[in-house]
Amino acid sequence: MSDFTHWNEEGRPKMVDISQKDISKRVATAQSTISMSKELYDAIQNGLIKKGDPLNVAQIAGIMGAKKTSDIIPMCHPISIQGTDFTFEYEETTSGYDLIIRATVTCSGKTGVEMEALTAVSIAGLTFYDMCKAVDKRMVIKDTFLVQKTGGKSGDFFHK
Amino acid sequence: MSDFTHWNEEGRPKMVDISQKDISKRVATAQSTISMSKELYDAIQNGLIKKGDPLNVAQIAGIMGAKKTSDIIPMCHPISIQGTDFTFEYEETTSGYDLIIRATVTCSGKTGVEMEALTAVSIAGLTFYDMCKAVDKRMVIKDTFLVQKTGGKSGDFFHK
Amino acid sequence: MSDFTHWNEEGRPKMVDISQKDISKRVATAQSTISMSKELYDAIQNGLIKKGDPLNVAQIAGIMGAKKTSDIIPMCHPISIQGTDFTFEYEETTSGYDLIIRATVTCSGKTGVEMEALTAVSIAGLTFYDMCKAVDKRMVIKDTFLVQKTGGKSGDFFHK
Amino acid sequence: MSDFTHWNEEGRPKMVDISQKDISKRVATAQSTISMSKELYDAIQNGLIKKGDPLNVAQIAGIMGAKKTSDIIPMCHPISIQGTDFTFEYEETTSGYDLIIRATVTCSGKTGVEMEALTAVSIAGLTFYDMCKAVDKRMVIKDTFLVQKTGGKSGDFFHK
Amino acid sequence: MSDFTHWNEEGRPKMVDISQKDISKRVATAQSTISMSKELYDAIQNGLIKKGDPLNVAQIAGIMGAKKTSDIIPMCHPISIQGTDFTFEYEETTSGYDLIIRATVTCSGKTGVEMEALTAVSIAGLTFYDMCKAVDKRMVIKDTFLVQKTGGKSGDFFHK
Amino acid sequence: MSDFTHWNEEGRPKMVDISQKDISKRVATAQSTISMSKELYDAIQNGLIKKGDPLNVAQIAGIMGAKKTSDIIPMCHPISIQGTDFTFEYEETTSGYDLIIRATVTCSGKTGVEMEALTAVSIAGLTFYDMCKAVDKRMVIKDTFLVQKTGGKSGDFFHK
Repeated sequence: MSDFTHWNEEGRPKMVDISQKDISKRVATAQSTISMSKELYDAIQNGLIKKGDPLNVAQIAGIMGAKKTSDIIPMCHPISIQGTDFTFEYEETTSGYDLIIRATVTCSGKTGVEMEALTAVSIAGLTFYDMCKAVDKRMVIKDTFLVQKTGGKSGDFFHK
Repeated sequence: MSDFTHWNEEGRPKMVDISQKDISKRVATAQSTISMSKELYDAIQNGLIKKGDPLNVAQIAGIMGAKKTSDIIPMCHPISIQGTDFTFEYEETTSGYDLIIRATVTCSGKTGVEMEALTAVSIAGLTFYDMCKAVDKRMVIKDTFLVQKTGGKSGDFFHK
Repeated sequence: MSDFTHWNEEGRPKMVDISQKDISKRVATAQSTISMSKELYDAIQNGLIKKGDPLNVAQIAGIMGAKKTSDIIPMCHPISIQGTDFTFEYEETTSGYDLIIRATVTCSGKTGVEMEALTAVSIAGLTFYDMCKAVDKRMVIKDTFLVQKTGGKSGDFFHK
Repeated sequence: MSDFTHWNEEGRPKMVDISQKDISKRVATAQSTISMSKELYDAIQNGLIKKGDPLNVAQIAGIMGAKKTSDIIPMCHPISIQGTDFTFEYEETTSGYDLIIRATVTCSGKTGVEMEALTAVSIAGLTFYDMCKAVDKRMVIKDTFLVQKTGGKSGDFFHK
Repeated sequence: MSDFTHWNEEGRPKMVDISQKDISKRVATAQSTISMSKELYDAIQNGLIKKGDPLNVAQIAGIMGAKKTSDIIPMCHPISIQGTDFTFEYEETTSGYDLIIRATVTCSGKTGVEMEALTAVSIAGLTFYDMCKAVDKRMVIKDTFLVQKTGGKSGDFFHK
Repeated sequence: MSDFTHWNEEGRPKMVDISQKDISKRVATAQSTISMSKELYDAIQNGLIKKGDPLNVAQIAGIMGAKKTSDIIPMCHPISIQGTDFTFEYEETTSGYDLIIRATVTCSGKTGVEMEALTAVSIAGLTFYDMCKAVDKRMVIKDTFLVQKTGGKSGDFFHK
């Protein structure tokens, strides 16, 4: 089992020293899902919004949020992200609709971008909630997780 | 049905004008759950960490994150938060353990603190993931939602 | 003539004390204009962008930028902005097109929101430039100024 | 014609992936001009300010602003700026004075610093306005543009 | 003895709820001292710097730093500071010179501005060090403390 | 004597161009000391805090603060810090106790991390003060200084 790498000998959290690690290209993809009522889905689809689009604001917030990761997550190293993109997909469910949000973050650096991808989808989800909460406060942000990562010494990872 | 309040007449998002709203005491509680392996739970409990505590870092990150809400969520108004607290609770599941995170945020202002509470639990969850991901990358952040809110013209809200 | 209010007795800048000022509703509108080639204007209009819209990103950046004013402008007081909205208008010129950007910011507080409105249109303009610079680097951001302000002891102001 | 590089296939904005681009030394210079009354110019020159100097505050704000570019402009990549400097020059006009602000930003990285230089002069200009607005609210920030850039695959650029 | 107010029942830190506290005018003054060599002091005085002035940059950084207090100190409430000013004084010592930095911060709010004043002088001191460290790396920042505070329920406080 | 490197030819501060400097591994250690009453020390030691620990919050704030250095100190270059850790040590004095805080920051870059280490201990000290000020407002933050630095062209440095 890997050991915990964020605590120092006195048991307090530290920012792990990565200066000896190699630079390599790293890519991570994370996913989050928002479950909403049919009423909200219809409102979005049926022109209650003219040129606007909640996904647009969510995507921009998610991209900007990925850049703030090391400012938000205490032990994250500052990383110069080199690319961020999103996909959004609606799926009908028994009780309404699910919006599936995926973000992929790229960098070439000494540490991975898993937290950047997870932060990106989380902030996109929170922004979607904020944009639509006047219509439906009962939305639930479900199953936020790391889909895959490549690059780095610890090897590639794929969620099941 | 309430209408969408974040878009202007040209269909682009705006920050809604709240200057005519009354100041009232507002409280919101949000919840998030992290599902983890028994291996990770045991590692946390069985002294692999001396004085340290992932919940401690998560709580501090969540409190600091609540203060950043209007910087992260594009259409949120800047709010002077007046109190933030957390509870954490572990529950055994069939496949491991769930950590249930709840945050309550208080302010007296012209708009509610739902987004602040949701942001607080989301950032606490992301931080917990970051602190423990060396042991278990398969953690899933499940069911993040608004539990309740009180205060403000739109009335009180309770999930379910 | 009004005197300079940002320097202290030793000649160094200070943040002026506004604690004795009254709270009143304050509104400010600022304007900026971007001059672009016909080629760029046509590219925007003729579907080189599907659902996307440079004005959308500019508007969101401008709204978020207004909230950052006191973080960017050294002597600005932190203000709880209560509303921000934009209008965008294209006008044909002899050499191409002008995009006229206007932002209106509202608050009820002890000091005005002129700088917030000017910062909002400036950041919206910079963002428009960034979104379109691959097509036309020769864009010029022209004539950024305060259109009007109302509220506060110094009285209302109208440009020209 | 170059195509738009900030939108993804679904028409929503993305942060372009630059991980394949080469690292090279990049320099960009931007310019902005503030048009002011003779009354304000005289006040600045004739010792209404002792040791203080609006250009000093404007320059510091501009340098700090250049560092915030990727936080302010949604699709800008985070860049480790390696140098920033300013020049300021007053010119008499028929109606008063013009202050010409130029900022040069340097980095060695995978993407250019045009936006950093434009942001630097814009924030310096806004700060100058803020420092002097008690004397003259009618100042206009005129003609903000990219003067030149060198370095990078797309080649050097000179305005006019 | 007052009890610790920053921890919750589970022993983890929380942001104390101040929503029941009254709004009152609050003022706090903090002091810090930088001890430097005669060589550095002479360099500053004898025109190695033309119009520039390390105190100028330190003061601006300190004012901007006061505004960032709640972003930097985890349990601090966001406060709308209403005024910040500095005094600087040099004193000859047996081994060189001391620079005494004092900052006074004002607000009318539900909680005091002690941390804002302490943060202001600390950041001003760090900035002075940064501006001059090429000449003298052995500077020591001595005795940073709260000089006095007035306003609020806990009463006035004067250091010794 | 070294000359001042932060001012340009016009006497205004600039961010020094480091693009020609070599990348090397750099380490810096800074120290700060907080002097407190025996009453406060006993309160911390004797279980007035259950699982909580002021050093824990101070350490996390210090690590996050080190990442903010270039945002706080005007002329500091943005640096990708690669590791940060702290030690804390209590020492009995004639009038109470001293807490000695040391922070070590690592990076491989074109400029040193002295300011990052000094900022880390300063923010940790301010946070400790904030956490404990309800018990003892008379704490003094004493002697904050650079202990040592290694790496870079200007050579290694050791205090005293």
